[in-house]
Amino acid sequence: MKFPQPETLSRIAALINAEIIGDEQAQAFGINEIHKVEPGDLVFVDHPKYYDTCLQSEASHIIINSKDVAGSAGKNLLYVADPFEAYLTIINHFRPFQAADKAISDTAVIGKNTLIMPNVFIGKDVEIGDNCIIHANVSLLDDTKIGNNVVIQAGTTVGSDAFYYNTKKDRGIWYKKMQSCGNVVIEDDVEIGAGCTIDRGVTASTFIGAGTKIDNLVHIGHDTQVGKNCLFAAQVGIAGATTIEDGVVLWGQVGVSKTLTIGKNAVVLAQSGVPSSLEGDKVYFGYPAIDAAEKRRELVWIKRIPQLWKKVFDQ
Amino acid sequence: MKFPQPETLSRIAALINAEIIGDEQAQAFGINEIHKVEPGDLVFVDHPKYYDTCLQSEASHIIINSKDVAGSAGKNLLYVADPFEAYLTIINHFRPFQAADKAISDTAVIGKNTLIMPNVFIGKDVEIGDNCIIHANVSLLDDTKIGNNVVIQAGTTVGSDAFYYNTKKDRGIWYKKMQSCGNVVIEDDVEIGAGCTIDRGVTASTFIGAGTKIDNLVHIGHDTQVGKNCLFAAQVGIAGATTIEDGVVLWGQVGVSKTLTIGKNAVVLAQSGVPSSLEGDKVYFGYPAIDAAEKRRELVWIKRIPQLWKKVFDQ
Amino acid sequence: MKFPQPETLSRIAALINAEIIGDEQAQAFGINEIHKVEPGDLVFVDHPKYYDTCLQSEASHIIINSKDVAGSAGKNLLYVADPFEAYLTIINHFRPFQAADKAISDTAVIGKNTLIMPNVFIGKDVEIGDNCIIHANVSLLDDTKIGNNVVIQAGTTVGSDAFYYNTKKDRGIWYKKMQSCGNVVIEDDVEIGAGCTIDRGVTASTFIGAGTKIDNLVHIGHDTQVGKNCLFAAQVGIAGATTIEDGVVLWGQVGVSKTLTIGKNAVVLAQSGVPSSLEGDKVYFGYPAIDAAEKRRELVWIKRIPQLWKKVFDQ
Repeated sequence: MKFPQPETLSRIAALINAEIIGDEQAQAFGINEIHKVEPGDLVFVDHPKYYDTCLQSEASHIIINSKDVAGSAGKNLLYVADPFEAYLTIINHFRPFQAADKAISDTAVIGKNTLIMPNVFIGKDVEIGDNCIIHANVSLLDDTKIGNNVVIQAGTTVGSDAFYYNTKKDRGIWYKKMQSCGNVVIEDDVEIGAGCTIDRGVTASTFIGAGTKIDNLVHIGHDTQVGKNCLFAAQVGIAGATTIEDGVVLWGQVGVSKTLTIGKNAVVLAQSGVPSSLEGDKVYFGYPAIDAAEKRRELVWIKRIPQLWKKVFDQ
Repeated sequence: MKFPQPETLSRIAALINAEIIGDEQAQAFGINEIHKVEPGDLVFVDHPKYYDTCLQSEASHIIINSKDVAGSAGKNLLYVADPFEAYLTIINHFRPFQAADKAISDTAVIGKNTLIMPNVFIGKDVEIGDNCIIHANVSLLDDTKIGNNVVIQAGTTVGSDAFYYNTKKDRGIWYKKMQSCGNVVIEDDVEIGAGCTIDRGVTASTFIGAGTKIDNLVHIGHDTQVGKNCLFAAQVGIAGATTIEDGVVLWGQVGVSKTLTIGKNAVVLAQSGVPSSLEGDKVYFGYPAIDAAEKRRELVWIKRIPQLWKKVFDQ
Repeated sequence: MKFPQPETLSRIAALINAEIIGDEQAQAFGINEIHKVEPGDLVFVDHPKYYDTCLQSEASHIIINSKDVAGSAGKNLLYVADPFEAYLTIINHFRPFQAADKAISDTAVIGKNTLIMPNVFIGKDVEIGDNCIIHANVSLLDDTKIGNNVVIQAGTTVGSDAFYYNTKKDRGIWYKKMQSCGNVVIEDDVEIGAGCTIDRGVTASTFIGAGTKIDNLVHIGHDTQVGKNCLFAAQVGIAGATTIEDGVVLWGQVGVSKTLTIGKNAVVLAQSGVPSSLEGDKVYFGYPAIDAAEKRRELVWIKRIPQLWKKVFDQ
């Protein structure tokens, strides 16, 4: 997430009550998660395990709960006791969630020949291209960007919050929401079925590439990147921050875990589960999803166990 | 379900055209399912197999299709030919379903700083606490009770009818709906994803404990009791009248059967199926879900069948 | 799909810029998919592999990309370079998708004692019988037909477009939508849960038989035919053009593939997957779903592999 305009570190420090170790007049352009940061961005870290990754990231400014960071590598540090709370303060300041007073925001931009059906909600700064159809009871939350020739069937939600929590089991509420400030970007010629849910990115964009077609009741998690010309059948679920390359086909009820990659033109057969990355140009099946031919042989082998048993114990 | 005020048995008997065997002036406080009844309640039973359970329950008054009940144990009996129809008559009399003439009922109570987004439906006697966000196109049906700091993402339904039918295959319509008169209770700091469905209890409450976080497209059946600080990933489905204790984690697409218990802090890995109760503090995997380490060993054993075959048949 | 009134072939040919080989004054009554056509209908075919099936179908008029069709068997041919585009042109001409200017269309017919809750969308030419309840945020798209005593829980979509595409991987957009012009027909005493999605037929009807009860978050694909008194638990998914006969029970999260048949009174246990047709009057389990008792024995056999291994390798 970028700030509306660059902010000096001293202003950020005042907002989150931080001690600056570095250049107070340096400029911060935004705040992002560690794997999304760009030069000029703030990032936060609250566990020593991740200190090094942060110090070696592209981030210019680090909100951190330690002053003893060896070799801060040209980064500016903002020392606070609880970096997660500081993150929430910054998000709520620059991107506060606001009640909508109407079903279609005045700041939404809707293209030519685009049809918006009844009972649709369109939030702030949503952009929809030309020749789209947004069916009844669809919710397009703030900052969603949609290309041309996109169809979204009824009852679908685009831009719901990431399912992403700060976990600490030594407090009453174990899971504290990591406030989402990203969005969803949908390219041209995408079609999304009825009753689907596509979460926004935590600080960046969830992305659906041009020409991809998605059936009903499909879930796509935050920050997931879907390529072009993919085909997802009904009730597929894809967890957060996963990469689905171009031309991938996922058949019905397939589940895909988080932060992995499915390579170009891979096909995953119905009800399979994908716990780790898959190479492209192959067909997969089962849980965990493996080469489909191998899986089918495995099912045949299982049926031969009684024969083995007979030979070994009854011969 | 409790009646608005206590009713004499003679009045109930007149309503359902029953013969009273017992005290006509006794008071009935409500009607509930057999596992939910409290002293003073009515219960109904239409199969001899369950007569004894009813007679030994906490119910004070039993709607029953037999007069020959040995030792009615201090209970008052209301004899009718079809107890199920009598139940429906009572529910439709005391808790009739009524059309809403507006999207947010005048009898709903909404707390401070709670944001209600556009196209939300809020039924009769719904209560929502402070600092909540109810996103667009959410439906909160009659009698839903929601605590403070609750977030419900877009398109979710809370309080849909139980999927619960009286089955008789010797009539044209095999399944007759057991009219729901319970509700849904959601405690503080709960978050519910987009496109979820949470059914009301048949006569009592479906319950979601404080701090529990639920991802998108999750289904929770009638009368299910979910503890505090649970985490359910996307597309999890939990059938009716099940108990999920505190701190349980269910990963994506897990299915849980009805009327069972998952113990405290249990973790069930993605796509697993839970057909019977699970002890707490363990990790489970597979269908039927077993100890995850054991399941993983099982998957390794399956891959060794060809080697066994070779040794036995080809040596 | 039938045209509002019969059309001469010459008029159809002018619309799609086709060369007629046959009787220009012949009448066309409608256009349908190959397995749905009736005498008088148009059908289209663009792959030589299917030419014969078309020529032997009930269709009277064939939109085709070849003039060299041996023995056109009394059919009239409409020659065009791209039959799929001709199909789209015909559908968009006779059944154009139109924006709704109100949430409940003036052309909808709603029966006696039927309750329509807030935020419901009811499209053009929808018909709903008597004594129905249509809960909040439901979308009933154009041409949906609903019988008496039907209950549809909140957030459900009926009549979304078929997930059905013309695939050609040598163009920028691989998948081009086969425009749906069919509808959904729901008989008496059906109940549909919350958050469900039922797609319309491509050119004919998706059908739900009398007395069938469907739980939450269930997906039913285009052109699927569901019998009477079926029971589908939550999160079941049924792909397109499948036949589910009377009395079938599908437990939670079952997935059913396309164009197959599940016989009368079959029961498929939770989380099973059905890739091919199943006989009636049996209980099935697993993926691929087989006789449940056989599947359970298979699970027992798997647990005996270590014992086999011990005997073979360690004896």
